[in-house]
Amino acid sequence: MFSPQTYISRRAELRRLLDSGIVVLFGNNDSPTNYPANAYAPLRQDSTLLYYGGPHRDHVSMVIDIDEGIDTLIGDDIPVEDIVWCGQVATMAEYAAAAGIERVAPAAALAQIIAEAKRTGRTIHFLPPYRHDTMIEIADLLGIAIPQQRAAASLPLIHAVVKQRSTKEQQEIDAIDRACDAAYIMHTEGMRLSRPGMTEREVAGRIDGLARSLGQQVSFATIYTQHGEILHGAPTNAVLEAGRLVLCDAGLELDDYCSDHTRTYPVGGRFTPKQRDIYDIVVAAHDHALGVARPGIMWRDVHLDVCRLITDRLKDLGLMRGNTEDAVANGAHALFLPHGLGHMMGMDVHDMEGLGQQYVGFDDEVQPSQQFGLASLRMGRRLQPGFVITDEPGIYFIPALIDDWQSRGLMKEWLCYDRINQYRDFGGVRVEDDLLITPDGCRFMGQKRIPTNADEVERLMEN
Amino acid sequence: MFSPQTYISRRAELRRLLDSGIVVLFGNNDSPTNYPANAYAPLRQDSTLLYYGGPHRDHVSMVIDIDEGIDTLIGDDIPVEDIVWCGQVATMAEYAAAAGIERVAPAAALAQIIAEAKRTGRTIHFLPPYRHDTMIEIADLLGIAIPQQRAAASLPLIHAVVKQRSTKEQQEIDAIDRACDAAYIMHTEGMRLSRPGMTEREVAGRIDGLARSLGQQVSFATIYTQHGEILHGAPTNAVLEAGRLVLCDAGLELDDYCSDHTRTYPVGGRFTPKQRDIYDIVVAAHDHALGVARPGIMWRDVHLDVCRLITDRLKDLGLMRGNTEDAVANGAHALFLPHGLGHMMGMDVHDMEGLGQQYVGFDDEVQPSQQFGLASLRMGRRLQPGFVITDEPGIYFIPALIDDWQSRGLMKEWLCYDRINQYRDFGGVRVEDDLLITPDGCRFMGQKRIPTNADEVERLMEN
Repeated sequence: MFSPQTYISRRAELRRLLDSGIVVLFGNNDSPTNYPANAYAPLRQDSTLLYYGGPHRDHVSMVIDIDEGIDTLIGDDIPVEDIVWCGQVATMAEYAAAAGIERVAPAAALAQIIAEAKRTGRTIHFLPPYRHDTMIEIADLLGIAIPQQRAAASLPLIHAVVKQRSTKEQQEIDAIDRACDAAYIMHTEGMRLSRPGMTEREVAGRIDGLARSLGQQVSFATIYTQHGEILHGAPTNAVLEAGRLVLCDAGLELDDYCSDHTRTYPVGGRFTPKQRDIYDIVVAAHDHALGVARPGIMWRDVHLDVCRLITDRLKDLGLMRGNTEDAVANGAHALFLPHGLGHMMGMDVHDMEGLGQQYVGFDDEVQPSQQFGLASLRMGRRLQPGFVITDEPGIYFIPALIDDWQSRGLMKEWLCYDRINQYRDFGGVRVEDDLLITPDGCRFMGQKRIPTNADEVERLMEN
Repeated sequence: MFSPQTYISRRAELRRLLDSGIVVLFGNNDSPTNYPANAYAPLRQDSTLLYYGGPHRDHVSMVIDIDEGIDTLIGDDIPVEDIVWCGQVATMAEYAAAAGIERVAPAAALAQIIAEAKRTGRTIHFLPPYRHDTMIEIADLLGIAIPQQRAAASLPLIHAVVKQRSTKEQQEIDAIDRACDAAYIMHTEGMRLSRPGMTEREVAGRIDGLARSLGQQVSFATIYTQHGEILHGAPTNAVLEAGRLVLCDAGLELDDYCSDHTRTYPVGGRFTPKQRDIYDIVVAAHDHALGVARPGIMWRDVHLDVCRLITDRLKDLGLMRGNTEDAVANGAHALFLPHGLGHMMGMDVHDMEGLGQQYVGFDDEVQPSQQFGLASLRMGRRLQPGFVITDEPGIYFIPALIDDWQSRGLMKEWLCYDRINQYRDFGGVRVEDDLLITPDGCRFMGQKRIPTNADEVERLMEN
């Protein structure tokens, strides 16, 4: 946690951004795996609740009264029977003091506060729920049916939270840097372990273990696969085979902030010329984004720049053809790059994604697209100093997608299907780093960059 | 998975155990962590659905028609857009064939099947839900309010499932043996890593990583703590200190079956005489249970035997006094052992706990107790060949509980509080193995026993 003043200031700013009413922030509870008492661990608290000073505990919530200027942390202290099982935890009063919150109230008070607000016609601001127990609670307390809750969430509150959380404070930047330092260890260990004969699961398990050793947990399910063309490919029991590429997209949460990096490298440590051709394009695309990211630039434009760069280079390899501008405008390149260039990152690995991508990554000036590929771009708007974004281009050969497009005759003008089918078993390449937008450009997060260029990767894997 | 015939036989047996109606088994879905698309991973499918042949996939369910003798696997095949992100998965027809299920139907069919069953007044058997999205689905489909669902669950179905899943088939025993072989690696690696200067989280993270390397995931949140007196103590950033005891209670899921073992060992590798006194009592209690567990014996009686053994030995150390029988009858020993001797284990680490402990561990002959300590015994009934149970006695010095009891003057006749307070900072000891009840006794699960006796533990930690 940061200082109490941090949280006091953030809540004061939130009050300034909202007109009136009360804000109710619901905390997360344990999520059962296979029976009620067996939960996924550790508890993943809601990021926005943490942002405004909520504790890492289940069954808590916070009410921020915009009009009266009083904040209340709500929840019950735990009884001695629970201490036997879970140990002593801080009291609600202690949690509140750590976040500069004036008032604590028992769990039962939440229903009363909401009932009173409803009775007096005050606006009750809440965020779109993403956990089903929270949905049930909102239905019970606010009387809003579950299918209607997302639409009933407070747009002013969403905009205020996005505004505050998008621009990282120095202490948040420091936390992300620390997470990225741990990510360096995770990824370089993954490279060293990726020897023929290991299974995907064996290596990925070790990477996951490092996330828990060095931080709190993974920031998302680790992607570690010889089928890099599966964008979110989970590790399997497949044995690593010399000569194949393995794609590792992994991150951790540390002190409530995330990391998110991807590297793609050859099992056995040597790229083939064919692999290196594709790999070098992805690195060039990555470096291009890195070179142009700065305040004021529109991230959607950088994405499209990268798509054009990739198209040009794939034309050199005989995989695409025709006019580059037209190919990208029509989304032909999305056969190879069906996702976006990057996303906001912070307390959530896709920062604030639960609030709605259209509010986090877009604005009046830049709206989300419906086109396949571009529709998966999670961040399009102009960059500002203090934003943290991922830069993660990729090139994939996805047999199911190739077959689907080819059978429907899609994008024939720009796609050389005969040549593409020679790459059917290639897999996929992605390279990803986390960037901080600085006043005059950008920088990598973390002290050391995970080896990126093909030669660097080969050198590390030799050892 | 086992052979299709396995699942056909299990469903046939289920039909034999039930009179009429339809059984609806709801599958689990991804559980969001901090936004809808970021799920805890991997998906933990419902054990009972898996037991009857359901696949490891989200958004599936199964309907077993008792009267018509037809089984239906319900769910939609995934579209190409999802293949891009998650890879090709089996079709519903392939999943059904692997489990010998005759019929597949799209997801939308479930509502129709249930509506038709309601219309014709047929009994709809379902199990108590433990996931909130399933609760919402049951409310929608069956019209049963969430707070009423547990009571509305089918008792005949619960009894039938408990009857079937309690007695493990040979192929299930083999699976648990494999999980326990992996557990050996997890625990001995944990012992080797437990050197002064490491943090709890560093070691526990490595253990978690092994669970994911060797199996699917941990079978419950790993307990690794120098505060062994916290029964479910999570690892912290505390640095391991030479001379302190560390308690590690950890298991994994492998091929859908669990392991669950505990060892307690001294950081630095040498027990102090005081630690060894307590440790040896726990091992003696553990060995006692091992010596008497056999078909026909009541596990509650073994638990009480163990409580008497511990009471006798704590009297020798001056921590308890008076009549042993009375002390145990009154629950005085529960200050030191507030939990039960063991629980059923199988596809769930507390096997079938979601169905209700009173149905899994108890019967008409043996009912759960309300007494502190004994109330936490999850398994009381007579053992049968093919049961798999944990044997996990412990002795703990829990300051909050000591203070609570002493301040209320509880059990003064049997508890020597002055002496007990000299152990306030001792921590806790637990030793746990998984036992298979054989036709004439029991055996450990797994090929090699994790070092248990104090000398064995010290020898392993020397290396």
